[in-house]
Amino acid sequence: MTAATPEASHTTDTVEELRQRTRDFIRGTVLPAEPAPGERLDQATRDRLQQAAKDAGVFAPHVPVEYGGQGVPIQWWSQIFQEAGYSPIGPSVLNCMAPDEGNMHMLNLVATDEQKRRYLTTLASGQVRSCFAMTEPHPGAGSDPDALLTSARREGDQWVINGHKRFISGAVGAGFAIVMARTEGTDDTPAGATMFLVDMDNPGIRVGEHIHTIDRAMAGGHPHVYFEDCTVSSEAVLGEVGQGFRYAQVRLGPARLTHCMRWLGLARRSLDIALDRSERRTVFGAELKSLGLAQELIAQCEIDIETSDAIIAKTGALLASDPRAGSAMSSIAKVHCSEAIFRVVDRAIQICGGDGVSDGLPLAQYAAEVRGFRIYDGSNETHKWAIARRASSRRRKTVDAGAPYQADAVVRDTESH
Amino acid sequence: MTAATPEASHTTDTVEELRQRTRDFIRGTVLPAEPAPGERLDQATRDRLQQAAKDAGVFAPHVPVEYGGQGVPIQWWSQIFQEAGYSPIGPSVLNCMAPDEGNMHMLNLVATDEQKRRYLTTLASGQVRSCFAMTEPHPGAGSDPDALLTSARREGDQWVINGHKRFISGAVGAGFAIVMARTEGTDDTPAGATMFLVDMDNPGIRVGEHIHTIDRAMAGGHPHVYFEDCTVSSEAVLGEVGQGFRYAQVRLGPARLTHCMRWLGLARRSLDIALDRSERRTVFGAELKSLGLAQELIAQCEIDIETSDAIIAKTGALLASDPRAGSAMSSIAKVHCSEAIFRVVDRAIQICGGDGVSDGLPLAQYAAEVRGFRIYDGSNETHKWAIARRASSRRRKTVDAGAPYQADAVVRDTESH
Amino acid sequence: MTAATPEASHTTDTVEELRQRTRDFIRGTVLPAEPAPGERLDQATRDRLQQAAKDAGVFAPHVPVEYGGQGVPIQWWSQIFQEAGYSPIGPSVLNCMAPDEGNMHMLNLVATDEQKRRYLTTLASGQVRSCFAMTEPHPGAGSDPDALLTSARREGDQWVINGHKRFISGAVGAGFAIVMARTEGTDDTPAGATMFLVDMDNPGIRVGEHIHTIDRAMAGGHPHVYFEDCTVSSEAVLGEVGQGFRYAQVRLGPARLTHCMRWLGLARRSLDIALDRSERRTVFGAELKSLGLAQELIAQCEIDIETSDAIIAKTGALLASDPRAGSAMSSIAKVHCSEAIFRVVDRAIQICGGDGVSDGLPLAQYAAEVRGFRIYDGSNETHKWAIARRASSRRRKTVDAGAPYQADAVVRDTESH
Amino acid sequence: MTAATPEASHTTDTVEELRQRTRDFIRGTVLPAEPAPGERLDQATRDRLQQAAKDAGVFAPHVPVEYGGQGVPIQWWSQIFQEAGYSPIGPSVLNCMAPDEGNMHMLNLVATDEQKRRYLTTLASGQVRSCFAMTEPHPGAGSDPDALLTSARREGDQWVINGHKRFISGAVGAGFAIVMARTEGTDDTPAGATMFLVDMDNPGIRVGEHIHTIDRAMAGGHPHVYFEDCTVSSEAVLGEVGQGFRYAQVRLGPARLTHCMRWLGLARRSLDIALDRSERRTVFGAELKSLGLAQELIAQCEIDIETSDAIIAKTGALLASDPRAGSAMSSIAKVHCSEAIFRVVDRAIQICGGDGVSDGLPLAQYAAEVRGFRIYDGSNETHKWAIARRASSRRRKTVDAGAPYQADAVVRDTESH
Repeated sequence: MTAATPEASHTTDTVEELRQRTRDFIRGTVLPAEPAPGERLDQATRDRLQQAAKDAGVFAPHVPVEYGGQGVPIQWWSQIFQEAGYSPIGPSVLNCMAPDEGNMHMLNLVATDEQKRRYLTTLASGQVRSCFAMTEPHPGAGSDPDALLTSARREGDQWVINGHKRFISGAVGAGFAIVMARTEGTDDTPAGATMFLVDMDNPGIRVGEHIHTIDRAMAGGHPHVYFEDCTVSSEAVLGEVGQGFRYAQVRLGPARLTHCMRWLGLARRSLDIALDRSERRTVFGAELKSLGLAQELIAQCEIDIETSDAIIAKTGALLASDPRAGSAMSSIAKVHCSEAIFRVVDRAIQICGGDGVSDGLPLAQYAAEVRGFRIYDGSNETHKWAIARRASSRRRKTVDAGAPYQADAVVRDTESH
Repeated sequence: MTAATPEASHTTDTVEELRQRTRDFIRGTVLPAEPAPGERLDQATRDRLQQAAKDAGVFAPHVPVEYGGQGVPIQWWSQIFQEAGYSPIGPSVLNCMAPDEGNMHMLNLVATDEQKRRYLTTLASGQVRSCFAMTEPHPGAGSDPDALLTSARREGDQWVINGHKRFISGAVGAGFAIVMARTEGTDDTPAGATMFLVDMDNPGIRVGEHIHTIDRAMAGGHPHVYFEDCTVSSEAVLGEVGQGFRYAQVRLGPARLTHCMRWLGLARRSLDIALDRSERRTVFGAELKSLGLAQELIAQCEIDIETSDAIIAKTGALLASDPRAGSAMSSIAKVHCSEAIFRVVDRAIQICGGDGVSDGLPLAQYAAEVRGFRIYDGSNETHKWAIARRASSRRRKTVDAGAPYQADAVVRDTESH
Repeated sequence: MTAATPEASHTTDTVEELRQRTRDFIRGTVLPAEPAPGERLDQATRDRLQQAAKDAGVFAPHVPVEYGGQGVPIQWWSQIFQEAGYSPIGPSVLNCMAPDEGNMHMLNLVATDEQKRRYLTTLASGQVRSCFAMTEPHPGAGSDPDALLTSARREGDQWVINGHKRFISGAVGAGFAIVMARTEGTDDTPAGATMFLVDMDNPGIRVGEHIHTIDRAMAGGHPHVYFEDCTVSSEAVLGEVGQGFRYAQVRLGPARLTHCMRWLGLARRSLDIALDRSERRTVFGAELKSLGLAQELIAQCEIDIETSDAIIAKTGALLASDPRAGSAMSSIAKVHCSEAIFRVVDRAIQICGGDGVSDGLPLAQYAAEVRGFRIYDGSNETHKWAIARRASSRRRKTVDAGAPYQADAVVRDTESH
Repeated sequence: MTAATPEASHTTDTVEELRQRTRDFIRGTVLPAEPAPGERLDQATRDRLQQAAKDAGVFAPHVPVEYGGQGVPIQWWSQIFQEAGYSPIGPSVLNCMAPDEGNMHMLNLVATDEQKRRYLTTLASGQVRSCFAMTEPHPGAGSDPDALLTSARREGDQWVINGHKRFISGAVGAGFAIVMARTEGTDDTPAGATMFLVDMDNPGIRVGEHIHTIDRAMAGGHPHVYFEDCTVSSEAVLGEVGQGFRYAQVRLGPARLTHCMRWLGLARRSLDIALDRSERRTVFGAELKSLGLAQELIAQCEIDIETSDAIIAKTGALLASDPRAGSAMSSIAKVHCSEAIFRVVDRAIQICGGDGVSDGLPLAQYAAEVRGFRIYDGSNETHKWAIARRASSRRRKTVDAGAPYQADAVVRDTESH
């Protein structure tokens, strides 16, 4: 979906028009239907709101027009996704929520026509949800995907998958899973990981213990999922055998960035709440908004929001023009945005005082929604490690190519100290 | 209780012995009885554990021996309270939890013998809980106590209290409240605020709407409390009429500091959990504890914990020797500790990854417990404002007393730029 | 110069080509000619390098082609200016250094043809330098421009300027000054501030005491400048009488942003030095670059650099399309970049250890160069104040226009706490 | 000197009296004699002020009375050293400056009577200065002392030292050096490092190239020092052969902490300058000190200063009672204080605006003085590494001794998500 389809020849103007329409829809239709803090969106409301989004022409902004979406290219997703994320349920309503959004992205890039017909169509329309089964309990695949333990072995024309996954967001009630499993090499295919499309009613899949996390926006929870001699046909292979790790990278760069977009919308919401509060409160005889220590908090929020918006835009443009460079940049965007967004929500709580940590306002729940983002999709520490290594490598290549080494200390001894 | 009573002639050695005993009790007896994250301590378990604490000779460390406590002077509370706080239910079990602990402190300093007999005895023994009714809905008393709206007017030998309080921690199920109300001056008494001891079964008190906050350690919640022609006798006045604001300061300095102590214990617990995690996990083929980006987090935790411990010790010693200076210093301790403790818990979550934001570990709940401390007892912004003004005032007095003013820029123009 | 002139019809490709040429010139020609840390660029070397820049077709990137520059529109300055700033003397060599660059920008927008002929031509070609005389000693114009004390009064067809300026960067050796002075209103002109073009050899101007600051890159220092019955003709008025404050804003938005661009180049240089160091050093038996605590520093540098680059790009695009919004955004860019750039240089010093604080490496001098940027062009505190007020105002207007106020705490009391 | 000598039976009261006397001396006598920012203290002024300090009874606070000092035990040094450090030349004047102060400390603990007579007496009295020759150029001893390359070999009754040191603070003009060299083991002595007392007029010592660093308070610079067949007698061995690394630890714990003490004094000075500035400046019609964004800076300074003071006090007490634990704690104190002190000076600069980065005020020079402290005496990164490893080790031992491992995530699956 990084490339605009013919039908969706968007321009800055049409995207701005869609952004405004999305904004009106979210604020006018979705906000009044939000569940209370700590509660989840029920299915009936979700269905009703999705229909309304379709009617308003704002459903599935990132999905090609042929699959019922708005066909917006990736470099313009941010404006729209931020509007969606202004409500914690907005992305679900617009069907641009993780993990479905990333799965749609990958299916569009990698799936066969038959797979698209079967999986992408229903997913894009909101008829089913999906999950992405990669993470495993220690010592399996986590921060380090190479530690993958789940395996798939060929048996004739079939594959038999065995393994234990956890933190499989959205698995409860999902229609299908994209499963990452280790596969052996053959004469034709390399050893490595392979992705499989597996229906959740496959008898070899069992959704196990739920993991109760502090977020509430994710439909389908984050449970354990067990694969026990889960047998699928060769049509279940997504893309090529042995290319799973490569596809995972293709998926993760944009998926990481759309998290930034959606949660930046929630940061804007949080700041609006705090600004409303500081507008009408007086303390020590002064308007709260006029007190310098509140202004410090507000200004820092603005800086965090605008720099996040800017690094997202830069990364989105790169993902459109140079996916590999864009994926590298997405590490930087992910670390900056996940920390900046958390700070914004945290400061908004501070401005709202006791109400900020109560469910009288939704801010404490927003903090719970965004906290995990510093951990998910590669912990920030893992990303910083990767960022540093890429920087070192880039510079080393420059020096190897002839740029002068600049770190030799010059001895300058012409006079007394 | 800042002064040790004759019976409790503690030394460094006896306090260290009590600390060790408290540590053994908390880790051996209390930890195994902790409720699951998000759950509350039930009354039966609390009663059982309080009895065990009495049997172990560790109950009510800060309470004079004559009231059944251990009679530890304030400069040594920190060691003991940190051990108590290692469990989120530890302070309740040892009866050194807010708001009871601060109320005991104030009753001991201000109450009449009869009031002590009636209120302090039962409170110190754990038979009843209490609350402190000061905070009001906007635009009443909050960060700015002067905005107090609740009033008490004399009617003959009685007082009639009217007003609306909120965030009254511990009110549900409390035996009595210490109520702050505005009183008019008379020939004998100044206008200002006055404190009253009011039984919670007084028909003029109504515990109203609960406020659902993210913490769970506080028995009795944080509800609204309404005073509607609540009538009490003159024996209900705590201390002197018109001195309420002064007593509130007497209460708040130590109360603020004991929050630091208890929650620093929880920060130590959080770090222990993270250290345990990093000890046994491997990632990218290395022990997690050996990775520099984890070591950065661990080292910052250590620094936060030790500097918090140090500023608490400094403030506690000052409160013992010079309560006014100690109260000023408690603003600094409060801001530093509340932020440092939050950072420690937040980093521990980060080290524990997905489990950190799930209820598989208690860390996310710990973060919820300590988040409010940056807001309660005067928001950190309010304290920073006070800290800055005190610094300016201190320096101005020094200059007024003859110290040279040092901020005139000297013009040094002897040569070219 | 925000609009490209006809002759300079740049595209992304031509700008990229110019960027590469500038990069080659700076690294191949300018770096080898840099003075030692703490020393200044001498005039002869500057002249030689400026000629070389002209020969290489990289001189004055922001200047219209008709005045001898490369005619790059403002939204593309950043790529070029960052390459220039990779050397602390690069901007002087390319004639895109403050305050000349901002003065050229303003002259192009506001000056008469005759003024352009006389002042812009020589300035753009590097024949003369200039200064911008706005800041005054306390209690005059500083963070608060409205406090302007320097005055200009009409005497027939002339103006007589009196006042005392300081921190007038570049004044020593400048050919002319743009002077901000308070003027009274007449029937035709409003009261306010007016800008004047004054030759530095006017007998009424006296360059006074130098102010020795820690930076070295600014030719012409930061001296006091005195105006003593300094008489100029009416042709000296720049733009319209009474519009000085408005023009100052026109100048300051882009001027602030070009500081960000140039110094971001120096931040990249600093990181390169640190990366070189960490590439070849071993400590405790490991390569420095492989140690997590060094990687933390490197990754934070990358994040600071890329987010700075991104917010500059966003602001530059806004300045081109909507100067008023761009000027507001430039406050955010200025605060973020000035702090991020300082942090990058500071971390680079840390990575280089003792050499980092010696003149064996240029890093300590780089830190001195960039430190002032948190103070110049409006202190960061002043900008944060403005940022917060704009945020409050924006939100208030949204609410006034009908958006729901979101900060009323909802009372949700359906069950026990 | 950690133990008070009989003659110097200090109490809290006598130390407070000495602190007040030191304060009066520094502010009344030393401040007026300070050199301009960037200049150094000349020898004549130093001699005059040292005599005045002796006359005032404040000279050498840490030195035993028998050597002409005030005999203050280490747990009380902080109060006195902070007063000394209020002036950048104060520690030199009171003869409690690095590296002499640490050398005196070690000589007192380790030297023979004859060595004390010859070296400690003259050093303590201010007659000579000294240096500590440990650090070497890469890849020798730096952050990692084990990398020591300088060697000493026995030749009969003599030792011959060869090696290259650098950053040898105070070497220019010093009377003697304490030299760290690698020595081979014998039947009687272990292999390892050994310390030697070497007169600087030994023909085998050559003070080489100076290293121009940004600080100015250190008399004697930070030059390279070469040992070329430098021959000394066996009386030159300080302590026991092969124990050099152990003694270095003995020296470094307190030496690190006294840096904290002295520079905390300079931080207090910086804040005083900023408070003076904010007291008398008005901006935007308000007193600077009343603006919240200045109050934020001031409050953060107070918090940094008081927490630094507190962790120093804690560490000093530990060094007196348990030197090994104190040395470990000194890593934490060093990291916290070096960063906090730098922040205080940096914020003071910010409050003073343009004057802050000029030599019209001394703040920019103060920033240069304290910047190196994050690098010297073990870089903060090295200390954080050590702090993290100690924390991991402490916790592992606790768990090994029977404490329950707390990081197993509990599966709590009793209901739907």
